[in-house]
Amino acid sequence: MRYVVGVDLGGTKTAAGVVASDGSVVVTDQIPTRNRDGGEAILDATAALVRSLIAAAAAEGIAVQAVGVGSAGVINAAEGTVISATDAILGWTGTRIAAGLAERLGLPAAVVNDVHAHALGEALHGAGAGAGTALMVAFGTGVGGSFVVDGHPLLGHRFVGGHVGHFASPLAVHRGAPLPCSCGHAGHVEAIASGPAIHAAYQRGGGSTALADTKAVFASARAGDDLALSVIATAAAAAGQAVGGLVNILDPAVVVISGGLADAGGLWWDAMERAMRAELLAPLAQVPLTRASLGSAAAIVGAASLVFAP
Amino acid sequence: MRYVVGVDLGGTKTAAGVVASDGSVVVTDQIPTRNRDGGEAILDATAALVRSLIAAAAAEGIAVQAVGVGSAGVINAAEGTVISATDAILGWTGTRIAAGLAERLGLPAAVVNDVHAHALGEALHGAGAGAGTALMVAFGTGVGGSFVVDGHPLLGHRFVGGHVGHFASPLAVHRGAPLPCSCGHAGHVEAIASGPAIHAAYQRGGGSTALADTKAVFASARAGDDLALSVIATAAAAAGQAVGGLVNILDPAVVVISGGLADAGGLWWDAMERAMRAELLAPLAQVPLTRASLGSAAAIVGAASLVFAP
Repeated sequence: MRYVVGVDLGGTKTAAGVVASDGSVVVTDQIPTRNRDGGEAILDATAALVRSLIAAAAAEGIAVQAVGVGSAGVINAAEGTVISATDAILGWTGTRIAAGLAERLGLPAAVVNDVHAHALGEALHGAGAGAGTALMVAFGTGVGGSFVVDGHPLLGHRFVGGHVGHFASPLAVHRGAPLPCSCGHAGHVEAIASGPAIHAAYQRGGGSTALADTKAVFASARAGDDLALSVIATAAAAAGQAVGGLVNILDPAVVVISGGLADAGGLWWDAMERAMRAELLAPLAQVPLTRASLGSAAAIVGAASLVFAP
Repeated sequence: MRYVVGVDLGGTKTAAGVVASDGSVVVTDQIPTRNRDGGEAILDATAALVRSLIAAAAAEGIAVQAVGVGSAGVINAAEGTVISATDAILGWTGTRIAAGLAERLGLPAAVVNDVHAHALGEALHGAGAGAGTALMVAFGTGVGGSFVVDGHPLLGHRFVGGHVGHFASPLAVHRGAPLPCSCGHAGHVEAIASGPAIHAAYQRGGGSTALADTKAVFASARAGDDLALSVIATAAAAAGQAVGGLVNILDPAVVVISGGLADAGGLWWDAMERAMRAELLAPLAQVPLTRASLGSAAAIVGAASLVFAP
């Protein structure tokens, strides 16, 4: 068995773990991401986290050979750098993640966008294990995804591939106008099918302003609130319609759904699956649809997989 | 230079050519597809066509080494068989194309779906030549496509990948109801953006029944017919919106647009490109968009490429 540290570097926290080549996680830890301090400070803190995990593994006689990182932002996986990132991590754009960690740690390092790392973990060792191709779509704060083919996520020519929340949805409308989307355009899947979009739809519909977030809208729906039930049904239908269209385009061996909404129970899942199946071409009718199984470890495991030989 | 016969086997005609390993076409010929006579009769006729091309090439001192076929239908490219086909070619389902031609000709044979062959030809030797990845979308009788990565079309787990006409379009509606689609569902891109969809929209809108087909609707639009202009603009916008969404999902190096509508001039193209660019995420804004350049030779060249070493 060989061992690698996998790192999941997000806007608020950085989690890492020592991962074996069979995908099992030996030990994990996490720190807050120093998201106001710039790229070098984040790399310093990340290297310290990795060092502490390497020490913990060494105490059990395990030698770590490399570091794989899944990071927020658009990541040039070939060069190991951050092409662009939002203000959630100030000063992240331009950071040489792979080279910076390799210099600090004296180990080979690789990096990929965190959504692709998440999908890679699920594809290789989670809900998609054993399938040649897996389409992962995450419905949470945003809508993103990744198509993993033979153990490699399709990163795209400019490393922008996988933005599956940014195509048109017939349901992303309000009073005849397309809903504004986080990308600056309008009418996209993410504008109706993300978690925050459910809360926004509830407010638009005149729902109680006492419900502070999407979780509260789900609770109210379970208590029989018709408006809450309706906005969740619409969001789930938009999600399923989008996934069904992606299946017709890509024909994946399996579909893996992830993110907070995938964990919200049958209220969302059943409506999503119904809408997905309603879109499918006949030869795709039986495509397996599963919920992500690795939880928060997926990106750590996927990031580690980057540096294991394919 | 090595030489292969490429075959483009469609519902009405079968075209073939001797193709050199640099993508150039030495000699071509075509026959009507024996689309009422069943698989074995079609293979007999195709083998005869290939033999005549081999003889013509031999007269110029060229030895043909193999046969590559792009065929209508859902094609199992690994086994060289027809998984399913429409009634446009009776008895095609189940036909062992690769083995049947190899037996008849004494040469290695390979087969792939014709849209993928078309895309492969454009990706390797046409509008996408030199780019690592190419998204080809064809707008004609139907809407189909293929994403070619490093010289290989993504065929999908069940060989159904590339059905890019079958995801939801906000514009595929009439009086609030989704338009019926050829796949049996409704509201898909193909239902509003295909060639026949333009003629159907013109008729639905109360246009002159004297206009017999889509070509006539384009002619009427060029003569100032407001309804014709409007339905073409809507179809082109739906096409562009769909392509833009696909670019956000796949991030191809280049986008190649093919099919009869791509050749219909600026009336369609300009509206399509505008709608496409309006969908793109910022880092994709400059994605190159080009018209297919190989014409009817694309599928022949792509089919031949199947059997050249990658």
